[in-house]
Amino acid sequence: MSAFLPPAAFADRLDRVRKAAAERDIDALLLSPGADLRYLTGYAAIGLERLTCLALPTEGDPALVVPLLERPAALASPVGALGLEVRSWGETDDPYALVAGLAGAGGRPRTVAVANRMWAEHVLRLRDAMPGIDQRLAGPVLRDLRAVKGPEEVEALRRAGAAVDRVMLRMGEWLRPGRTEAEVGRAVADAMVEEGHAVCNWTVIGSGPHGASPHHDVSDRVIQAGDAVVIDIGGTMPDGYCSDSSRTFAVGHAPDEEFLAYHEVVRLAQDAAVSAVRPGVPAERVDATARDVIAEAGYGEFFVHRTGHGIGLEEHEEPWIVAGNGEPLVAGMAFSVEPGIYLPGRHGCRIEDIVVCTPTGVERLNDSPRELVVL
Amino acid sequence: MSAFLPPAAFADRLDRVRKAAAERDIDALLLSPGADLRYLTGYAAIGLERLTCLALPTEGDPALVVPLLERPAALASPVGALGLEVRSWGETDDPYALVAGLAGAGGRPRTVAVANRMWAEHVLRLRDAMPGIDQRLAGPVLRDLRAVKGPEEVEALRRAGAAVDRVMLRMGEWLRPGRTEAEVGRAVADAMVEEGHAVCNWTVIGSGPHGASPHHDVSDRVIQAGDAVVIDIGGTMPDGYCSDSSRTFAVGHAPDEEFLAYHEVVRLAQDAAVSAVRPGVPAERVDATARDVIAEAGYGEFFVHRTGHGIGLEEHEEPWIVAGNGEPLVAGMAFSVEPGIYLPGRHGCRIEDIVVCTPTGVERLNDSPRELVVL
Repeated sequence: MSAFLPPAAFADRLDRVRKAAAERDIDALLLSPGADLRYLTGYAAIGLERLTCLALPTEGDPALVVPLLERPAALASPVGALGLEVRSWGETDDPYALVAGLAGAGGRPRTVAVANRMWAEHVLRLRDAMPGIDQRLAGPVLRDLRAVKGPEEVEALRRAGAAVDRVMLRMGEWLRPGRTEAEVGRAVADAMVEEGHAVCNWTVIGSGPHGASPHHDVSDRVIQAGDAVVIDIGGTMPDGYCSDSSRTFAVGHAPDEEFLAYHEVVRLAQDAAVSAVRPGVPAERVDATARDVIAEAGYGEFFVHRTGHGIGLEEHEEPWIVAGNGEPLVAGMAFSVEPGIYLPGRHGCRIEDIVVCTPTGVERLNDSPRELVVL
Repeated sequence: MSAFLPPAAFADRLDRVRKAAAERDIDALLLSPGADLRYLTGYAAIGLERLTCLALPTEGDPALVVPLLERPAALASPVGALGLEVRSWGETDDPYALVAGLAGAGGRPRTVAVANRMWAEHVLRLRDAMPGIDQRLAGPVLRDLRAVKGPEEVEALRRAGAAVDRVMLRMGEWLRPGRTEAEVGRAVADAMVEEGHAVCNWTVIGSGPHGASPHHDVSDRVIQAGDAVVIDIGGTMPDGYCSDSSRTFAVGHAPDEEFLAYHEVVRLAQDAAVSAVRPGVPAERVDATARDVIAEAGYGEFFVHRTGHGIGLEEHEEPWIVAGNGEPLVAGMAFSVEPGIYLPGRHGCRIEDIVVCTPTGVERLNDSPRELVVL
């Protein structure tokens, strides 16, 4: 896969994150495979029991520690062109001692920060290899960079949004009475790849009462005429950026009058919340805007989750659009706006777009119809 | 998805793991989504930034902590029939304090053990919610149960092995000159699902010089006549158990005489290593058996990884078949035997079967041809 960015862009990110770490009195960042590593180096490494870890001391040069058998893959990634030092270890070596040594490149560290999604087996073995050193999370350092997307990242998210929209527009090909949720899910997953994703990350096909479980997956339930069906699908594009969109369809006809009414409540709540997005607005106000519309319609207790989450190289990342998060939105932040109403035992509804906060307001990255579509 | 086992079987596992934890002076196990949780409860939860965690005190009752929006999915899993207490938390609650309270059901704990693959953000927040309490890894407790498969687990692995074998036998449908590795990879991934997997976890299509990178993925390289191609594919079946097999093919004709010779060395090394498997044999001896054959043929420095890894609900789990692991094999252990030779810039070869240690020796779970197949 070709590099998403030129080496100079990764070098710039490495430089910025090192400064951000120093400002927080962190002596070294220790980043295992995942979005942080991919963001900083372009290396889409796989998470394994064998430790791969970027050691990034705030003073001294970074080095990428990789198992010997991963060395060719690491050098074939943008890491090669970036000129990052790659230190490989053999199957009977101790990679934790190696990382501990590299983390202290500028003297003995007092505080290291580990990637938020590093596995416990690596976290605790690094702890034991560096006794007396305080371990913190690297998330707060990385989020300052990752939560605010650059123009090329917004463009990547636009492409991801367009790809998932094309799948939503084709839903009538698959979502029909007599099919099981699992059959629809398989067809949708195939279409996600056909429309440009490298991989489909999930397909929620929540038909009838299953629509009341927000993170329902698929089941052998046969879809019937008169079902409401919550569709929530997301995937990762070849460049690593993610899509995520939800729509609620009716098959044949709507299940009842109440569904028709509260689908419209959700649509209005989503629209109001999107309209509330602009720089300086606290993240929680977007949540409150959606919640107020739903509460005023009498469905407050049935909106059981936050309004949204950031998106980028991960499907779920900062900022969180949730009560209690008073941080102001910044132009370049990309996140979901996805209110829902879930009536246990009956049906549910969710409408979700990815949006980007712009200097003057908001841009939606999804644009398939939000009004109820009856298939 | 239907439960793989009856509730009584999960209750028995919970009981056994609690005893194993008590023997190691661990006061509570804290298990986030992943194979440990699925093994003990049947709940195939998704890993999220929102904490889901089974708190299993060695004295007192276990409880499953889930985000409110995951509650229906948790109850629809075998957790519902198991009668496990499910404690849900809302978007503005603190789940770490909740888990800390539940972990101390039998008094204030001194030592807790976290799932090996729990994310750092959960590990360190649990640490901060339970000051002064020693955090260890739960892996050593769980592995005593998970590494030795029961008869129904071996049967599940047999089904997974048969499914990946059917894909290997169809390789000639896709692996032809003029196709890119990526095109072959997509077709193979589709076939993995057609042949019974719920999901394909990876496709290594290492053609020509790419075959020398053991964990090469796919690329836009066009496959040519005379290429050797390392194929390594694995997937997860609907019941959660995994497949993993590797074969090395030649397209049109073998690249050269040396490849023909060392492919046979790998085949003999793999065969010798498989034959070395029986109860009581140290894991490292299986590795040494393969390594000795390859070293004697003069290729020792080109076999850059261990000989194998355990497999079950995870693609890679204990036991590790590697130098330094003196633990004796036990009937019921399932693992890969996958020696390889990798010549940088030229080509490579790997042959991999999953095997199960039986009371009297070994059973191979993969049986597609290991001799060189020219497509």
